Amino acid sequence: MTASDRHASDYFSTLLAKYSLDDMAKRLQPRSNAQPPRVPGSPIISPDLVLQRWELLGDAVDARAELLDAHSTANMSIYQHNIENFIGTVKLPIGIAGPLRVNGLFAQGDYYVPLATTEAALVASYNRGSVLITEAGGAAAALLNEGVSRAPAFTFESIEKLGRFLSWLLARHDEIKQVAESTTRFGKLIDLQISVEGNHLYLILTYSSGDAAGQNMATIATDAALRWVLQNTPVKPRTAFIEANFSGDKKASAQSLQGVRGKKVTAEVTLPAALVRDGLHTSPERMVEYGRIATIGGAMSGTIGIQGHFANGLAALFIACGQDAACVAEAAVGNTRMEVTPEGDLYVAVTLPNLIVGTVGGGTGLPSQQACLNILGLAGPGHARALAEVTACLCMAGEISIVGAICADEFTRAHARLARGHRP
Amino acid sequence: MTASDRHASDYFSTLLAKYSLDDMAKRLQPRSNAQPPRVPGSPIISPDLVLQRWELLGDAVDARAELLDAHSTANMSIYQHNIENFIGTVKLPIGIAGPLRVNGLFAQGDYYVPLATTEAALVASYNRGSVLITEAGGAAAALLNEGVSRAPAFTFESIEKLGRFLSWLLARHDEIKQVAESTTRFGKLIDLQISVEGNHLYLILTYSSGDAAGQNMATIATDAALRWVLQNTPVKPRTAFIEANFSGDKKASAQSLQGVRGKKVTAEVTLPAALVRDGLHTSPERMVEYGRIATIGGAMSGTIGIQGHFANGLAALFIACGQDAACVAEAAVGNTRMEVTPEGDLYVAVTLPNLIVGTVGGGTGLPSQQACLNILGLAGPGHARALAEVTACLCMAGEISIVGAICADEFTRAHARLARGHRP
Amino acid sequence: MTASDRHASDYFSTLLAKYSLDDMAKRLQPRSNAQPPRVPGSPIISPDLVLQRWELLGDAVDARAELLDAHSTANMSIYQHNIENFIGTVKLPIGIAGPLRVNGLFAQGDYYVPLATTEAALVASYNRGSVLITEAGGAAAALLNEGVSRAPAFTFESIEKLGRFLSWLLARHDEIKQVAESTTRFGKLIDLQISVEGNHLYLILTYSSGDAAGQNMATIATDAALRWVLQNTPVKPRTAFIEANFSGDKKASAQSLQGVRGKKVTAEVTLPAALVRDGLHTSPERMVEYGRIATIGGAMSGTIGIQGHFANGLAALFIACGQDAACVAEAAVGNTRMEVTPEGDLYVAVTLPNLIVGTVGGGTGLPSQQACLNILGLAGPGHARALAEVTACLCMAGEISIVGAICADEFTRAHARLARGHRP
Amino acid sequence: MTASDRHASDYFSTLLAKYSLDDMAKRLQPRSNAQPPRVPGSPIISPDLVLQRWELLGDAVDARAELLDAHSTANMSIYQHNIENFIGTVKLPIGIAGPLRVNGLFAQGDYYVPLATTEAALVASYNRGSVLITEAGGAAAALLNEGVSRAPAFTFESIEKLGRFLSWLLARHDEIKQVAESTTRFGKLIDLQISVEGNHLYLILTYSSGDAAGQNMATIATDAALRWVLQNTPVKPRTAFIEANFSGDKKASAQSLQGVRGKKVTAEVTLPAALVRDGLHTSPERMVEYGRIATIGGAMSGTIGIQGHFANGLAALFIACGQDAACVAEAAVGNTRMEVTPEGDLYVAVTLPNLIVGTVGGGTGLPSQQACLNILGLAGPGHARALAEVTACLCMAGEISIVGAICADEFTRAHARLARGHRP
Repeated sequence: MTASDRHASDYFSTLLAKYSLDDMAKRLQPRSNAQPPRVPGSPIISPDLVLQRWELLGDAVDARAELLDAHSTANMSIYQHNIENFIGTVKLPIGIAGPLRVNGLFAQGDYYVPLATTEAALVASYNRGSVLITEAGGAAAALLNEGVSRAPAFTFESIEKLGRFLSWLLARHDEIKQVAESTTRFGKLIDLQISVEGNHLYLILTYSSGDAAGQNMATIATDAALRWVLQNTPVKPRTAFIEANFSGDKKASAQSLQGVRGKKVTAEVTLPAALVRDGLHTSPERMVEYGRIATIGGAMSGTIGIQGHFANGLAALFIACGQDAACVAEAAVGNTRMEVTPEGDLYVAVTLPNLIVGTVGGGTGLPSQQACLNILGLAGPGHARALAEVTACLCMAGEISIVGAICADEFTRAHARLARGHRP
Repeated sequence: MTASDRHASDYFSTLLAKYSLDDMAKRLQPRSNAQPPRVPGSPIISPDLVLQRWELLGDAVDARAELLDAHSTANMSIYQHNIENFIGTVKLPIGIAGPLRVNGLFAQGDYYVPLATTEAALVASYNRGSVLITEAGGAAAALLNEGVSRAPAFTFESIEKLGRFLSWLLARHDEIKQVAESTTRFGKLIDLQISVEGNHLYLILTYSSGDAAGQNMATIATDAALRWVLQNTPVKPRTAFIEANFSGDKKASAQSLQGVRGKKVTAEVTLPAALVRDGLHTSPERMVEYGRIATIGGAMSGTIGIQGHFANGLAALFIACGQDAACVAEAAVGNTRMEVTPEGDLYVAVTLPNLIVGTVGGGTGLPSQQACLNILGLAGPGHARALAEVTACLCMAGEISIVGAICADEFTRAHARLARGHRP
Repeated sequence: MTASDRHASDYFSTLLAKYSLDDMAKRLQPRSNAQPPRVPGSPIISPDLVLQRWELLGDAVDARAELLDAHSTANMSIYQHNIENFIGTVKLPIGIAGPLRVNGLFAQGDYYVPLATTEAALVASYNRGSVLITEAGGAAAALLNEGVSRAPAFTFESIEKLGRFLSWLLARHDEIKQVAESTTRFGKLIDLQISVEGNHLYLILTYSSGDAAGQNMATIATDAALRWVLQNTPVKPRTAFIEANFSGDKKASAQSLQGVRGKKVTAEVTLPAALVRDGLHTSPERMVEYGRIATIGGAMSGTIGIQGHFANGLAALFIACGQDAACVAEAAVGNTRMEVTPEGDLYVAVTLPNLIVGTVGGGTGLPSQQACLNILGLAGPGHARALAEVTACLCMAGEISIVGAICADEFTRAHARLARGHRP
Repeated sequence: MTASDRHASDYFSTLLAKYSLDDMAKRLQPRSNAQPPRVPGSPIISPDLVLQRWELLGDAVDARAELLDAHSTANMSIYQHNIENFIGTVKLPIGIAGPLRVNGLFAQGDYYVPLATTEAALVASYNRGSVLITEAGGAAAALLNEGVSRAPAFTFESIEKLGRFLSWLLARHDEIKQVAESTTRFGKLIDLQISVEGNHLYLILTYSSGDAAGQNMATIATDAALRWVLQNTPVKPRTAFIEANFSGDKKASAQSLQGVRGKKVTAEVTLPAALVRDGLHTSPERMVEYGRIATIGGAMSGTIGIQGHFANGLAALFIACGQDAACVAEAAVGNTRMEVTPEGDLYVAVTLPNLIVGTVGGGTGLPSQQACLNILGLAGPGHARALAEVTACLCMAGEISIVGAICADEFTRAHARLARGHRP
């Protein structure tokens, strides 16, 4: 038996040790027996509906006490328009990392960054990196580009019909822009890309979105544009869809490296060798050597861009600050680069082309999330670009700290020490 | 001026309208002025330290009231070992989606799934998909493989030295396995892959991890193995690192499609045409046509696998249930496939090769998170495989619902309606 | 022993059966013994130098007779400027596929396509697909975009310096364009993209190239622009390089799917069901089902775009027609899509965003290569766009034929039959 | 108008300047007018048939003289089983690069490498790199793995049926192996991987193939195995296909980096700093800096692995030596790495996981191709592994030379000088 099918066989054997093939088959069958009750569904949050839902969930007194604590009960109405089928709240602990000095085009100052996570060592690691960056005078950060997109598609009988449609469409740019922008106070249509594949036409409409992350804005504006197009075009598509999986929404995509999705930020810092030695117990040379090895590792495992663990900082910041946590999937791409400078110090740069962040809309107005934005001094209008720059610098802090730990042979110890004693 | 540099120029102009080049340059400079105080750092959670941190954060009474509410104050000690530099908690609303009938090898039953999100429409959409799956008799789900990995690297003077080391290593499999497994009650070393690149050697050690997500377990076991190897090998590597960015940890990677990371699950359901019509207001044919278009969109945008928005369900479930939310970055890869059956019904399958989930360890023991796992009936030992199957079926519910909404031209309306009325 | 290291061990064992570890080590050592003579090197082709090279190659009378046959000897001077260190010619057999009817924006007619290959079944398969397309009235083809690029990079001390440089550069667009275009009769700078990564600046300059493939033109024009920039900029980069591996030159890259490299063509055809049945012995439905399965296969194996075997047709056409055969590596990306039409027929579309083809320059002027272009009626100026469209339709012919063969269960038989009888 | 649609509009305008929309539409229409004659098709090569084909191609006396020269006419029968619809031969000039000293596990010696190309500068560049490697004592090279694959797929009504089939299949390993191997003298089934996606089952059967590239062998063996499975399985699949686009055949795929396709080779050399200075007119430091920049460029453009121009050497060697030139598409992935050693010298490594090469079968037995293999001393049985190692070292020579040229600012000049004087 060859190597790989032996692995499959081994797993199958463990299954068969538990169930016979017929047992397994039975488990996989559709079951048409009585349907359990549906969740009383509503976007409206009312104590009655919440109660009905808990009754449905049955004998779950303890769970209810935890999720529907007094504070959540008293304030449940604030979550209206952020959730449906509400039953309570989950609490995630917040730790503070900082100060993180950011010398950005938009962010200027020493930030204390609230991070929500349940993973030991995460805050300690980002805190360590932040402090080192600050001791080095802070990180330079530059927002390079911004724009959030929606990608409708049209199908036609033939390339020829598609061409006629496209010819008409390209001459209607001003009308499309006007219709799309009429739906939004802040959004501006800043790019319109075209991709033809046989009788399929994909458009990518990209918008600036002010201080909102902007996905809903982009959807609503594109929907209006799409309707206008369908009503006015003399060449009728066979079908049209508002989104054809070409915008990169909620998933890592190679295309974000060629342009922008959300906000694109690059950041850099130079850590003096002495700081690397004292703060990370290693040397710039060893960190750069590690970077070279890890770059090959990333390339061979088939990642999009090459970096270490952007996702840790992004997830913790996104959850704390009312961002869309699902966007971690798309935001966690980019590059980390380390070099030894001619002076023997450590130069570090990170670039994130796909930061979906905002300081208005989404979860940013919820009390505990807004509190976190307030700790940053970045709540409300006027702060989204600064938030993007701080986020990139935070990611850089995490890269510095984890690489330092791996190089100083402290990675395992830190995790073991901080996570020890977990409740069973 | 060409198209693309005009775009860059436009953005530059908006910058220059705000700052002169010299102003911008000044903003980007390192600042060596007085360092702000560090966060009083500790993994220990004590009211005193929490108070000191809030004092550091200054005049933030409102923020403190929200994050350090009475419930959080009373229970702060529970977060020890899950966070450092604690200052309070963020509250995310939970909505319930379900029932979701899962006919899995491990998960069997009708699940009410707690989802934590601040994005309107998410719970409503997953709820809709879940109910439809349940009405169709439930989704079949099969855990196909499992294993969590750590990827140390070694460098040598030459390929020749590397070869001598490898020759020694391959003959020490039993010792390595024994040393690694000696550090863990549940983890078993189930695979050891080898990748040679010039004078670099990468190992990928893969472990079963019982009911824990297992990253820390894999780290600790690999660390022990690595130390044993370094102490015993007659061929000394130039350098060795515990992780070389080749495990896929915290990032989407193409390699997960060829094997497994965490847990790999496939799931399927057949929705009768009538159910598609009544529940989604469209037809199997139109959904399959959309799937074809979206597959091209995904391929052209350069995603890893082709799916719609796994990340939404994953993030919401992971946050509610104490999973590592940063793993959304790696878990949100895989495939969604839709077909019209010979009977004219809709067949849907999803496959997720990289589900990092557990029912013990990490955040799973925290009260509100454990409450969520209890609602699922999946808290504690013995449930991780079932949780993986439920997660895959939840993702399928989301795919069905979003594709249905796009096909029925309801996508924009649903988002606009449910998100309207946001606090400013 | 686990599965994967057992595989490695097995291979190692076969090695060790042949050589001891020390033997292997010795084989890998650098050897400083006497250097063998260098090849008498020159771009000039002269009988004397050719003779000297053959003398160097020693007792190789048979080889010389084959490579330096009378025809090659008589005509050797024609290869000057296409090769260095000339010793003779390799002969590849050419087969004809066709007629291939192309209804393109630029290509119009019934083409007999010369294909150079040594792989049995290739010409037969492309011939079959071509004839079917022709019987269906021909393939529609549309050149969608064109442009060949070069990607220089600059490094700076800091992002700030980079920004100053960029500010200067963006205001020098006209000068750069003029300098670049001054080096070429046909090339026009049509796009200038900018990518910033920390203190690295990447530019992608894209040119139209008339009827040449254009890589050398793009290099020379960019070199002039680069020199002008370096001489005139008030902000000196630390380093600058003419190409930073960001143009996609000679390698498959995801970026080509978002834009163009060389020429981008889409093509389509509808094959009546009867033609599929009679010509391919299968049905549109089965071919579309196969397409669905093969799309998942492509996505899971991590390809760029999803197609079958574009490379076969590209390599055979490129070699026959004097194109740069190394560009098969980059050209063989794109999409193939098949659908059943409402009438039950088979719709097929292919899209190739990265066709590097030309009808002047490179190898296109060599006698046997030009003869092949003449068979196509596409030799010399004015034909590059048509050649791109014919190439895309040829690739479509190959996709139709191979999918038909797999669906009709004839794939293996065709290969076995046509390749049988190989010389030992 | 935004940037990107302006680009599209510009292109559209150039089209409309040439044709009206209606003209373009007319050009794209299927044309059912008289079918031109088919190519007299046959795998048999006979002077009569060749004559008939040339008659079909009409008034092409010059082309015929070039393609069907006396040498080709006299020897046409040798191409039987390598081509169909034969009409003559294309001649590509061959240049010699070398000596290339290879200290491989299998290749041992100083090789003069025949390269067929029509691109100026290619041979000169590979020659330069080869000589430098040789001066440094030669390159170490190690074949790491080998195996060629075929990937059939099966579909079932449900995951449950698939599971039953798989359970049966896993217990039939020995029979499958025996049936597959019964079709081949040299091929051995060495791995059988399984991938489940909903009700789809993909198998990847990997074979050793002796000294043949082995694709046909793998196809024939897999076909036999597939037929045996279909005849014997008690669980009937709905459909089965011999290849499901999951083997990586003829296309770059991320999966090859995790395993092998064909042959996997790694190679290394250390070039003394003085040699870099004298031979390349640059320094190890500058080349390593370039490598860092080019690595980011490769990662951002979305390539599979990160290298410079493997494709150039591969295409030239493959064409000269009777390899399958279409396999350049898949072979041109991998990694190039450069480092400065502690002694200040330049360490270079290349790794190619997907080398499809053989020394028997395919085009290797044709006279001019075999002559090239004879120049290498690698014709016939027993040499495929050595050929793979030489190929990898050749690719390394090309990487060294091109990076040196870019770093010494000689890249453009070399191309301009060697390509000047092209025939118009």
